[in-house]
Amino acid sequence: MKEWLSTTLEALNLVETMEQPDGFTRLGYSEEETASMSVFRDVAETLGLSVRRDQAGNLFARWGGKTDHVVMTGSHLDTVENGGGYDGAAGVLCSLGAVKALKERGFKPHNPIEVVCFASEESARFGVSTLGSKSVAGILDKSVENVRDRHGVSIKDAVESTGLDWSSIEEAERTKDEILSFIELHIEQGTQIEDHGAQFGIVRGVACPIRLKVKVEGMAGHTGTTPMGKRKDALVALAPLITFVSQEAEKLSNQSQKPLVATVSTMNVKPNVMNVVPGQAEAGIDIRSVDDALKRSMADKIIEKCRSLENEFNVTINIETLVDNPSILLDEELTARVKRAGESLGYKTFEMDSGAGHDVMNMAVKWPSALVFIPCEKGISHHPKEYSSLEDLHAGVEILAEVLQQEAGE
Amino acid sequence: MKEWLSTTLEALNLVETMEQPDGFTRLGYSEEETASMSVFRDVAETLGLSVRRDQAGNLFARWGGKTDHVVMTGSHLDTVENGGGYDGAAGVLCSLGAVKALKERGFKPHNPIEVVCFASEESARFGVSTLGSKSVAGILDKSVENVRDRHGVSIKDAVESTGLDWSSIEEAERTKDEILSFIELHIEQGTQIEDHGAQFGIVRGVACPIRLKVKVEGMAGHTGTTPMGKRKDALVALAPLITFVSQEAEKLSNQSQKPLVATVSTMNVKPNVMNVVPGQAEAGIDIRSVDDALKRSMADKIIEKCRSLENEFNVTINIETLVDNPSILLDEELTARVKRAGESLGYKTFEMDSGAGHDVMNMAVKWPSALVFIPCEKGISHHPKEYSSLEDLHAGVEILAEVLQQEAGE
Repeated sequence: MKEWLSTTLEALNLVETMEQPDGFTRLGYSEEETASMSVFRDVAETLGLSVRRDQAGNLFARWGGKTDHVVMTGSHLDTVENGGGYDGAAGVLCSLGAVKALKERGFKPHNPIEVVCFASEESARFGVSTLGSKSVAGILDKSVENVRDRHGVSIKDAVESTGLDWSSIEEAERTKDEILSFIELHIEQGTQIEDHGAQFGIVRGVACPIRLKVKVEGMAGHTGTTPMGKRKDALVALAPLITFVSQEAEKLSNQSQKPLVATVSTMNVKPNVMNVVPGQAEAGIDIRSVDDALKRSMADKIIEKCRSLENEFNVTINIETLVDNPSILLDEELTARVKRAGESLGYKTFEMDSGAGHDVMNMAVKWPSALVFIPCEKGISHHPKEYSSLEDLHAGVEILAEVLQQEAGE
Repeated sequence: MKEWLSTTLEALNLVETMEQPDGFTRLGYSEEETASMSVFRDVAETLGLSVRRDQAGNLFARWGGKTDHVVMTGSHLDTVENGGGYDGAAGVLCSLGAVKALKERGFKPHNPIEVVCFASEESARFGVSTLGSKSVAGILDKSVENVRDRHGVSIKDAVESTGLDWSSIEEAERTKDEILSFIELHIEQGTQIEDHGAQFGIVRGVACPIRLKVKVEGMAGHTGTTPMGKRKDALVALAPLITFVSQEAEKLSNQSQKPLVATVSTMNVKPNVMNVVPGQAEAGIDIRSVDDALKRSMADKIIEKCRSLENEFNVTINIETLVDNPSILLDEELTARVKRAGESLGYKTFEMDSGAGHDVMNMAVKWPSALVFIPCEKGISHHPKEYSSLEDLHAGVEILAEVLQQEAGE
C-alpha cells in the first residue's frame, strides 16, 4: 500500500518526485487542475470505480452498493500558487487508498461509496473558495461569475474553458437524500496533533473567516521634493496597523478559551515606484476563530485602530468587509464514530478546531459531515515544503477504510 | 504668448484640456512619449527651428548662430504612470516659448541656441532614470540594456522599438566643445519658492539618491492554521521599518543644516493572497539630501534597524544598494548669471537645492549647467493634480529668454 500511495501521490501531483523547489501550482479550473483530475480518473478506473464529471467539474468515482444513499469521501486537487502537494491531494489519495484497501479485503459495500474530487477549493485564483463543493451543496452564489483572476479571466470563462457550461452549473446540486454522510481527510496545516502527542485529529468545527480590505488614501508626491513634515504617506499611515493586527491577535488569543488568528496577508501600494511617496496603500486582513464573537471583537478593534490612524496621519481610510461567515460545527455523531474508528485501530486522537476552511464546511450545511486531520511536518502548508509522511498517509487510509466500512455497511 | 503657452502645453501633453482625472502616462521610449516628441518637432519647426533626432532618441531643435558652440536649454516629455502634465513638459514648453519670444523681438543669436527634448528622464518604467541626457553626456552605462520593465521589455528592445539601434546609442555623446552651457527649467515639485515669497528658484545643487532594496525572508503558512506565536511573518517584521524610516528621516532632517528625506516608496509581498501568511516582503527605500554624509548616515541607521528586526522577528533580511550617487553641484557662475537675469526682470528669487534628480545633473558633469525652478501648486507632482499657473510659465519664458539672449549673444 505504501508504495502505491507514494506513486499515486506523485501521479496526482503530475511529478516524478515530491521534491519541487517551486512547489505546485494548480489553480482552480486551470489546465493543471484538469490534468491532475484526469490522473484521478485513471487511478479510480484502474481500481474498478466508475467516474462521472458533474456540471461544476467535480469528479465522482463510485463503487457498488445496493441503495441510492451514498457514503462520500474526498477532497480537492487544486493548489495555491507555488503551494504544496498534500493540501487536498492527501485527502483524495487516502480516499482512493481506502477503497483499494476495502477491495483487497473483499468488502462489498451495501450503500455505494463515492470518492469525490471537488473542483477549485482554494481561493488563490479568484478570491472565492470551494466553488465545486458549494455547487454540490446548492449554495453557490452565481453572481460570482464575473469575478476575475489577475489576468482578467472571469470565473464563468474559466469554468467554461474546461468544457463546462456556466448556465447549468446549478445542476451539480445533489439532493439531501442522495448522500448519507461525507467524510473529508485533510492535512492539518498546523502542529496541534503533534504538540498533543496524537496521530490524527478529529475536527469539531471549522473557523470561517472575517476578511477586511483596508484602503488608505493619502497623497502621492515626489520622494525628493516633499519634505517629511508635509507628507500624507499612505504606507506610513498603514504600517502601524500591520503591527497592531499581529500583536492584538496574539493578545486576544491568549486571553480566550478558543484560539484566534489575524493576518495582514495582502498589501498593495500605489503607484509603487521608487521616486513617488505612496499615495494609496491597501491591505487585506484575514481573521479566524471558531468563536464568532471573538472574531467580531478583533474586527472591531481593527476598525477602531483605523479611525485613530486616520487622525494621526491625516489620511482617509475605507474599510470593506469582503467576507463575514459564521463558523461551522460538524456532525457530533458522525464525528464521534470517526473518532472511535480511529481509536479502534490504536491511533491516539486529538479533538480540535480547524482554522482553515475546507470543502467539508459546505457539505456540512446539508449532510452529516466529519473532518479528519493527519499531521504535516512543522505545520508548513501552502508552501513547497509542505510534507506528510507515508506513515501518516497510511494511517489516514486505515482510518478512512474503517469509517467507510461502517458507514456503507456490507 | 499666454494663449500660445496654454495651447502648446495641451498639444505636448496630447490632450485638449489639462484636466485629466487619471493624469498623464508617457513612459520612456513608449509610443506615448514618441507621440509627444512628434508634437515637439511640429511646434519647433513652425517656429523655424531645424530638428534633429540623435542616436538615443533625444530631439534637438536648433536656431541659427555663427559659431559651433551651442547654448542649450530644455527638459523632457516622458512622465511617470498617471503623473502630471508639467514635470518635464514645462521646461520644454518654456524653452520653446523663450525662442518664440526672442524671435518676436528680432533677436539673432551669435551662438546657436538648441532646445532639447531628452528621452526617458523618469525612472518609472525601468528603474533607471535620464537615459537620454546620460547618452548626451557620454555617461550611459550600456550594461543596463537588459534591465526590463514590468512587462518584461528590456531597455534595449524599448529603445529599438522607437526605430533606434542600441549598438549606436553611444554616438549620441556630444563633445565638450560643442556646448557652451545648459540651462534647464523645471517645476519645483515642492513649496519652498512659495514658502519664501519668491517667484522662481535658483538651484545650487541636486540631491542624488541612495536607494536600498530591503528583502525580508520569513516563512509562508496558512493564515487559519498557523498560531500567532509560531509565525515568521515577513510583513510583520518589515512594518516597523516603514515607521522607522519616516520618523528617523524627520528627526535627522530637523537636526541638520541641509534637509533630508527618506521614503519607503515600493512594497511587494509574496504570495500576496488572502489565506497565506506573507513569506516574503520587499521594500524599496529612497534617501535624498544634498549632504552626502547625512544621506549615508540615514542609510546606515536603516541597515542597523534591519539587523535588530532580524533578531526580533526571527527572519532573514537582505539589503541591496541599488543606487548610491553623490550629489551634484551646479555651475556657480552660470547660476549667478541666471539669478541676476531673473532679478533684472523684477522677479524675486530663492536659492535652494533640488531634492529630485533632473537631466541637468548629467549635463553638469561635462558642461556649465544651471537649473531654474518655477512654482507648482501645493508642491504636488507625479500626480494628476500637478499644476503650474500660466503666470508662472510665462515668467519662466521671460527668464529663459533673458538668459539665452545673454549666453548666445547677438
